[in-house]
Amino acid sequence: MTYQAPYKDMQLLVAQAYQQQGLDACESLDGFDPELANAVMEEAAKFATGVLAPLNAVGDVQGCRFEDGKVITPDGWRDAYQQFAESGWIGLALPEAFGGQGLPKYIAQPVNEMWLSANLAFVMFQALAQGGSEILLNFANKSIQERYLPNIVSGDWTVAMALTEPNAGSDLGALNTKAIPQADNTYKIKGQKIFITYGDHDLTDNIAHLVLARTPDAPAGSRGISLFIVPKYRVGDDGALGEFNDVRCTGMEHKMGLHGSPTCSISYGDQDDCIGELVGELNQGLQAMFVLMNEARLSCGLQGVALGELGYQRALEYAQERTQGANSEGEKVAIVEHADVKRMLLEMRSETFALRALGYQIAAQIDATEAAHDSSKKDRVALLTPIFKAFATERANVMAGQVVQVFGGMGFVEETGVAQIMRDARVTTIYEGTTGIQARDLMFRKVRGDQGRTVTELLAEITRLIQPFEADDEFASMATETQLVVTKVTSLLDSHLLNLNADHDGLLAVSVPFLEAMGILCCTWQIFNVLAYQQTQDTVDEPYMQNIKALAAFYGAYRLPCALAALKVVENAGLGLSKYKF
Amino acid sequence: MTYQAPYKDMQLLVAQAYQQQGLDACESLDGFDPELANAVMEEAAKFATGVLAPLNAVGDVQGCRFEDGKVITPDGWRDAYQQFAESGWIGLALPEAFGGQGLPKYIAQPVNEMWLSANLAFVMFQALAQGGSEILLNFANKSIQERYLPNIVSGDWTVAMALTEPNAGSDLGALNTKAIPQADNTYKIKGQKIFITYGDHDLTDNIAHLVLARTPDAPAGSRGISLFIVPKYRVGDDGALGEFNDVRCTGMEHKMGLHGSPTCSISYGDQDDCIGELVGELNQGLQAMFVLMNEARLSCGLQGVALGELGYQRALEYAQERTQGANSEGEKVAIVEHADVKRMLLEMRSETFALRALGYQIAAQIDATEAAHDSSKKDRVALLTPIFKAFATERANVMAGQVVQVFGGMGFVEETGVAQIMRDARVTTIYEGTTGIQARDLMFRKVRGDQGRTVTELLAEITRLIQPFEADDEFASMATETQLVVTKVTSLLDSHLLNLNADHDGLLAVSVPFLEAMGILCCTWQIFNVLAYQQTQDTVDEPYMQNIKALAAFYGAYRLPCALAALKVVENAGLGLSKYKF
Repeated sequence: MTYQAPYKDMQLLVAQAYQQQGLDACESLDGFDPELANAVMEEAAKFATGVLAPLNAVGDVQGCRFEDGKVITPDGWRDAYQQFAESGWIGLALPEAFGGQGLPKYIAQPVNEMWLSANLAFVMFQALAQGGSEILLNFANKSIQERYLPNIVSGDWTVAMALTEPNAGSDLGALNTKAIPQADNTYKIKGQKIFITYGDHDLTDNIAHLVLARTPDAPAGSRGISLFIVPKYRVGDDGALGEFNDVRCTGMEHKMGLHGSPTCSISYGDQDDCIGELVGELNQGLQAMFVLMNEARLSCGLQGVALGELGYQRALEYAQERTQGANSEGEKVAIVEHADVKRMLLEMRSETFALRALGYQIAAQIDATEAAHDSSKKDRVALLTPIFKAFATERANVMAGQVVQVFGGMGFVEETGVAQIMRDARVTTIYEGTTGIQARDLMFRKVRGDQGRTVTELLAEITRLIQPFEADDEFASMATETQLVVTKVTSLLDSHLLNLNADHDGLLAVSVPFLEAMGILCCTWQIFNVLAYQQTQDTVDEPYMQNIKALAAFYGAYRLPCALAALKVVENAGLGLSKYKF
Repeated sequence: MTYQAPYKDMQLLVAQAYQQQGLDACESLDGFDPELANAVMEEAAKFATGVLAPLNAVGDVQGCRFEDGKVITPDGWRDAYQQFAESGWIGLALPEAFGGQGLPKYIAQPVNEMWLSANLAFVMFQALAQGGSEILLNFANKSIQERYLPNIVSGDWTVAMALTEPNAGSDLGALNTKAIPQADNTYKIKGQKIFITYGDHDLTDNIAHLVLARTPDAPAGSRGISLFIVPKYRVGDDGALGEFNDVRCTGMEHKMGLHGSPTCSISYGDQDDCIGELVGELNQGLQAMFVLMNEARLSCGLQGVALGELGYQRALEYAQERTQGANSEGEKVAIVEHADVKRMLLEMRSETFALRALGYQIAAQIDATEAAHDSSKKDRVALLTPIFKAFATERANVMAGQVVQVFGGMGFVEETGVAQIMRDARVTTIYEGTTGIQARDLMFRKVRGDQGRTVTELLAEITRLIQPFEADDEFASMATETQLVVTKVTSLLDSHLLNLNADHDGLLAVSVPFLEAMGILCCTWQIFNVLAYQQTQDTVDEPYMQNIKALAAFYGAYRLPCALAALKVVENAGLGLSKYKF
């Protein structure tokens, strides 16, 4: 079996996010309703299942090759890219003014999820096109926009994001690539970058590199970083391709996973002939890059959902086919009947479902912010972004391990294809900011940054949502447990998280457990939210909802207790940590 | 850096296990004291670091090759095997009567740990030699013992364990390989087996396969399985090698990890010319195999410890070298100074330490049982075996993921070598009985099997051990928390685990969380045990003990809370599980 889009979940969660975020009231979204979303999803599903999914194993087995200074993508990649671009999928959520279809994010979200499930390594160019376009729209001058955006939106050119240097990873302030101003307002770029996804490839004629670099008189550290657009081939005033811009691929990483996605080292200006243009203000490069970074972080979270779904589908299929042991009548049974296998499947299913719900709500919140020119939801999105990014990817790693476990010995054998899920997933907790970076962002910027206002509003909303369930036959105890978590977070805000006298390192050392607790709480919140939403609907798919209720009960029983444990760890902040001498 | 044996831990824990299990009082162990252990460990460490560790990456990158029906091991493997055998390491803990050195298990344990850290893929033949010998010692007739054991103990021949068939994995009762009795009391063996570690290779002249098969009139299921010894080349009455015994390697798995360890498919009797001899009684094959299986499970647990140690060493080294970010004085700092990195390192360090302590105690308990011909500790070992096997390997997987995380993007690049740890570790929760199988064994055989007697004794011992700490300045709250866990397990015994009216599938679905809670509790127990033991010692390495205390406090703060959460899941047994329709 190949990947199948999980329609029912997607349709439910898309419609729910649309209504709950008030998108039906946004004039600018007229026509972009869930009905359209369903039609788009149907087309996307065909493409994901028919074209992208079959290439996933090909990409893993063949990988990209680096020959004579050029990256060659796996068999079938070029054709698939051509079709992908021609079908307009790259510009799906990009502005019509530059050739895109201008769809809101809440519709793009399930579509992107399908691409990521079907073939993560292939489709990594998509988030780069999306994020790169948003940088150019927000920061680049009109000339750059006009020369680059139509080509990016159409897929004629791809975008690469060149941040990391050997000594500047999480600490971008340490980077050294130089940008020397020229008389014509351009800059000569010189430096070495590593870990550049799709930094070189054979899919398109040109690649627009967004490069972080320093001008000669720039301040040290992160305040002296500017952003430049540096094409592989120069771009004339009319947008026509010019000569080679001295952007050389010097190598490609041999990675544990994502073999089909080229991760390149690039040398800019090796022959002193690499020209870039400034994007945005001088020394404000990180600010611009954060637009792309936020986009990329949300995309990472969605990768977690997508890999969770893919893994769940593979594990379920195998568990339904593979027989081991017998029931009390002595009949052979499929391992899906074994309670422990069922537990693993339901852990995957319930958490993927809840994280999908969270991801779709975030997308709709961004739409609401943009459509209503109302920034009230911005802080909520900012709070949820690190949680979604880090928790979804951490859980995807756990789930990918569970998929292999369900397959048993066969899972360890590469031909089964599930080892690939685990290998591919491994980097998602690292790139676009490690889990540690997300947890610090959550704890210090997002929670402490506004003295706990945004997180307190979220906690209050969760309390309001679950209150009615405290009288519910089925979910009373889960609601009570959830409220315990909310109460505990609230008290930790006072005692630890907002306490400026608390030991900084001690808090940092429990930032990941705190994020984990918030992740579980957000999943629980989303599950209650679906239950509540369904109660307001006239027509309900009864068997499907019974399953959702079973998932909800399961999540409350099996995963929710871990939130309190993680908060207990937060309470113990720093114990033993500083006393140990390595 | 290459792997270095963690001497201080090993010496402390070896000496402690020796004293606490009363091995000093065993006459048959005269001379086999910790002083000897230290001398042996010193030699082993040189071999592990000097010979085996450098071949670990070679094995991963080259892998074994399968050519013309033969398995070819990676470069250097044959030489290393020769040295390993000639140095007498294979027979270290095997009887002197057959050429071994007869060392007790408590000394072999740290030595084996070193092999497993240095090169897990290479050394997989060792547990097979050990377990295979024990089967022959316990079940085989004298003729088989005399013809096979000297060759196995010397390393001239290896042992392979042929259990799994395509349709018989965890459910061995489903196997189909046939054994047809011959006039001369031998059997003709015919069947296909898969997943046979070192089932074929080029290290030795012969391979002794221990094969599970059915005689024609055997009962169905697991009660009709017999064990046969089936050499690759026939063995004459004088032990001399004879003709080929129709044992053909038909393929080798392409695995996610352990590339240097050949995992073979073997066809027995393809030309109807494969002769085996019965080992033990007819239809009692599983009973014999369980001797090897128990050995293998303890070895697996030790693999978890060994991989945890290896990963910790690699992560620490990298964290001390790699700088990112700056301290408040603006100086660049090594990432080991970052609190979240420290947290990950201490999670690895503390749990590996505690699991090592547990593994060494188990080994010493087995020695005590054997030396004193006293079976009082047998039940304790039986209870701890599934916990050690499953918990240590599950945690090794988590830790291996943390190693990659500490390395960041570099961890995802294969050249760094830490991705290998993660890929190698992945199968340890699967082979020799999956985590689910261990959890079922724990819950139903080991806990319910004797109406909770053995587990209750363990809980009482833990309570006695920690009681003095409840008045300790540093560890009072950790002791209280631990007692909470003990109390919770005790109450769950009544309400769930020993309750014959409890829903069987509901319990099975929480058997892994129960095992997880017991794993954390056992680690906490071992940590308190070290603290208590040190208080009884005249001379103590003060800085080292300060670190152990810091580790203890860290474990109590960061890991112990997860035990209560897991027990809460046990309490919720089965919620949502049966209602969900896949």
